[in-house]
Amino acid sequence: MCNSFNKKFLDEASKMYEQNDDPINEHEMFMSMAIDLAKKGMENEEGGPFGCIIVKDGKVIGKGNNKVTGTNDPTAHAEVVAIRDACAHLQDFQLTGCTIYATCEPCPMCLGAIYWARPEEVFYGALKGDAAKIGFDDQFIYEELDIEISNRKISFQQISRNESIKLFEIWENNDRKKPY
Amino acid sequence: MCNSFNKKFLDEASKMYEQNDDPINEHEMFMSMAIDLAKKGMENEEGGPFGCIIVKDGKVIGKGNNKVTGTNDPTAHAEVVAIRDACAHLQDFQLTGCTIYATCEPCPMCLGAIYWARPEEVFYGALKGDAAKIGFDDQFIYEELDIEISNRKISFQQISRNESIKLFEIWENNDRKKPY
Repeated sequence: MCNSFNKKFLDEASKMYEQNDDPINEHEMFMSMAIDLAKKGMENEEGGPFGCIIVKDGKVIGKGNNKVTGTNDPTAHAEVVAIRDACAHLQDFQLTGCTIYATCEPCPMCLGAIYWARPEEVFYGALKGDAAKIGFDDQFIYEELDIEISNRKISFQQISRNESIKLFEIWENNDRKKPY
Repeated sequence: MCNSFNKKFLDEASKMYEQNDDPINEHEMFMSMAIDLAKKGMENEEGGPFGCIIVKDGKVIGKGNNKVTGTNDPTAHAEVVAIRDACAHLQDFQLTGCTIYATCEPCPMCLGAIYWARPEEVFYGALKGDAAKIGFDDQFIYEELDIEISNRKISFQQISRNESIKLFEIWENNDRKKPY
């Protein structure tokens, strides 16, 4: 899938590159692919105006657009979809040496996903403030993260700590564990 | 799947409830199910020591354990897996009126996922500091979120803002859009 995807998009991007009087650089070219994914996702009523491309050694290895409403999955942001796609392609849970192109500054969920995937670098297009202007909650969630957990808008309560910590002892004593 | 899952776990939990001299309450009972999921996930070498149960109207409608290494998916934290499961069950991208039971204080990715799913409340077991002690990056990612984006450990660079913002104009002008 990724190969045919690569070919089609690289062909289109190369054409655009040649036709453009003010040629865009490699990073802008990959970002234009992410923008195109976002457009197509909106056309197909899959979700919001966000796209993401993941590149390794100059090749697209993952792609995603927002699919929250189309798949009834609140975690299906463009970056999360693309990270899952790239990891499936690499058969690895790490994106070592990869570059992520996201059409908007990542929300806290996507930023967390990026840190867990550990890519080399991230390029982003619009700012979180731009997303807030059209009604997306990114800024609100960033603010909630800075508030003491007991004071947040969603109620968070701590229970069963002793029982839960026992899981960590099992993990530490498991010689077969695969750290991540 | 959820029905048989409910029956089996509710039977086990009820038995535990009756046998216990110091009976646990309803919230501790659901948390014990999440703990059990985490144990089974480790036994099956699916991932780390974390489990999650999602409940609506007294019934388990979603479940998850960490499956990062087992599925090569860095986003497959217990909470994300359970949110996706619950949303598939409800056929909705919102968890209105639901309660989430997570065996550990959510990492920034999972906290973001929780805010996007918008449940009623969250109960959590171990603290993020407990997870840090056995080598999980939650605390590091929380710290990175508070640092100016240009100073973070992973390189973040802003490009193509004008082109990316055009996506938001398309979104705003689309009468068929489904806000989320």
